[in-house]
Amino acid sequence: MKVDGKDMRPIWYDQDAERVKIIDQRRLPHELAIVELERVDDVVGAIEGMAVRGAPLIGATGAYGVYVAAVTSLKTDGGSERFLSECRRIKAARPTAVNLAWAVDRVLSTVSKANRFSDKIEAARLAAGDIAETEVDNCRRIGEYGVTLVEEISAQKAGGTVNILTHCNAGWLACIEYGTATAPIYAAFEKGIDVHVWVDETRPLNQGARLTAWELGKHGIKHTIITDNAGGHLMQHGRVDMVIVGTDRTTRAGDAANKIGTYLKALAAKDNGIPFYVALPSTTFDWHVTDGVREIPIEERDPAEVTHVAGLDAGVIKQVLISPLESPAANFAFDVTPARLITGLITERGICRATEKDILRLFPDKKP
Amino acid sequence: MKVDGKDMRPIWYDQDAERVKIIDQRRLPHELAIVELERVDDVVGAIEGMAVRGAPLIGATGAYGVYVAAVTSLKTDGGSERFLSECRRIKAARPTAVNLAWAVDRVLSTVSKANRFSDKIEAARLAAGDIAETEVDNCRRIGEYGVTLVEEISAQKAGGTVNILTHCNAGWLACIEYGTATAPIYAAFEKGIDVHVWVDETRPLNQGARLTAWELGKHGIKHTIITDNAGGHLMQHGRVDMVIVGTDRTTRAGDAANKIGTYLKALAAKDNGIPFYVALPSTTFDWHVTDGVREIPIEERDPAEVTHVAGLDAGVIKQVLISPLESPAANFAFDVTPARLITGLITERGICRATEKDILRLFPDKKP
Repeated sequence: MKVDGKDMRPIWYDQDAERVKIIDQRRLPHELAIVELERVDDVVGAIEGMAVRGAPLIGATGAYGVYVAAVTSLKTDGGSERFLSECRRIKAARPTAVNLAWAVDRVLSTVSKANRFSDKIEAARLAAGDIAETEVDNCRRIGEYGVTLVEEISAQKAGGTVNILTHCNAGWLACIEYGTATAPIYAAFEKGIDVHVWVDETRPLNQGARLTAWELGKHGIKHTIITDNAGGHLMQHGRVDMVIVGTDRTTRAGDAANKIGTYLKALAAKDNGIPFYVALPSTTFDWHVTDGVREIPIEERDPAEVTHVAGLDAGVIKQVLISPLESPAANFAFDVTPARLITGLITERGICRATEKDILRLFPDKKP
Repeated sequence: MKVDGKDMRPIWYDQDAERVKIIDQRRLPHELAIVELERVDDVVGAIEGMAVRGAPLIGATGAYGVYVAAVTSLKTDGGSERFLSECRRIKAARPTAVNLAWAVDRVLSTVSKANRFSDKIEAARLAAGDIAETEVDNCRRIGEYGVTLVEEISAQKAGGTVNILTHCNAGWLACIEYGTATAPIYAAFEKGIDVHVWVDETRPLNQGARLTAWELGKHGIKHTIITDNAGGHLMQHGRVDMVIVGTDRTTRAGDAANKIGTYLKALAAKDNGIPFYVALPSTTFDWHVTDGVREIPIEERDPAEVTHVAGLDAGVIKQVLISPLESPAANFAFDVTPARLITGLITERGICRATEKDILRLFPDKKP
């Protein structure tokens, strides 16, 4: 999407420099830091340290990581054995990221078909690019389907502003292009629909206030940052027309695990009769799981993310302590929104209700 | 309540120093700064600048402010005319605080009955003390009634930990002693009941993470700070036994305006069958209002409170910017929880359901 009028992605292969480059998202919104992934250590560090985040982007980074491993191992020293151990190291950078292992293996299988080292390197680069483009395609389709919902509301409001609330960052920064939750928003903007986005700040890591606000602003989309506490009040007063969020894992029955706090917004949407949509590429379905609240384990992260907040002071990004040193904190990363609170799922194959029957109608190959 | 084993209030008259003193709550939890209210400028500044906050404490500060005005005007210079204009200045420090004007007028009416300047000064000091003690009495009674609810849960859990979630700070820092929402918690602690409090951080000003965590910790009560996003997840998993919050304004039908985000917790409590109580002294009822969502105006505060967070870095309290400089933010200070989501109101006269009929049974003099 656009950044100051220029097209940009969170990861790309720079032809001139012959290097993979990423945006270091930890520096956003205060600094647009472009980092080269020159060595496998850079790739692992970027994934581990959350310079890149979001399932699709982690997958793409892993895929390009195989290319980096190929260049560094096959071109210079180590050969095939070193190459494979480097790829294992990339896969281990975030063990719970299903996309990461999948993407690394997919590129590896393409590489294995080439014979000469130079061909293997080229094959890795092309396969990584393919994975990125597939993510882009999925997100574009999510946007094409999702925008019909925005158009309907716009028509009902006779062209008045459509107010969309989103939580966390399920934008292009997490997904190469368009994003998932933001895809219908970007598509609506392209069509000239008057959209305005309420951006939940999304504590503890403030992905909304930091990343979603940044990418919407840079693309020129109207938005307002609010605290995570405010959405219910806005919905009570008719100031939200629809909610669109992403998801990290969705059950075959339509329960959606997403960033902590999503469930509260779904409850408020239900209480006020406001449509609540979850946008996802179908790779996010976990077909083995039905009851999300019971079956999806919720990651607990470092309490320091709750007790401290990162921000800019006098040009420098600092971590400030907000609470008493002695007070313990708990940091639950996700919650599960039960399907009963979800109006519909927006996928690359179309929109469906959040029921097993309707989901399987779109994905008949997943029938038991 | 206790701070490091010593009894403390957020405002008091220091006999030895012959001065009114307050805790400057803006420095908490990082520093326990005691400030003297020596001149009326100090009183006005403390109220305007939110060194003191919470309706009961603002009232008590206004009351002691009249004493300060009496000392400075009547003892030294200016006389009665100056005294009255100083009192008007105190009342204007926060025009929307109903308690403030009420408390100032109440002390003034006592003062007017005394003849000599020295008697007037003494009358002001005693009347201010009375107002503070009345707040303390109300909160103690709220605790005595509310603790029965905690005892019931404790018995059901065979003495297991009772997990109580609260939002914002409706503690002794806002109310002289005991607090409102925290009164049943302190009472349960005194009785030896095993209580643990989930403390919502309460963005944007983090009164939970800063103040509630501090006062519970200093008194020795088990607690854990969580983001405002986390309560729903905890309730889904049986980790919250009850919710108790305060309120800034309650309608005769039982709708409660409280810190933004309270409504979301009430929805989650309802969805999970968890009791949700609002604790309040009856002065918080607005008997003229019935439908809180429609009728109670919600204050919008400075967006900088959303885009910036205050915290400690290298021993100094700083404001850090969390969002893009160009992104607008909105800062709604309160929301309204409809009575249908409230299990009961805990008042100084007892506990009642959040219906006009039940409320009027406790307060028969308010019948139309």
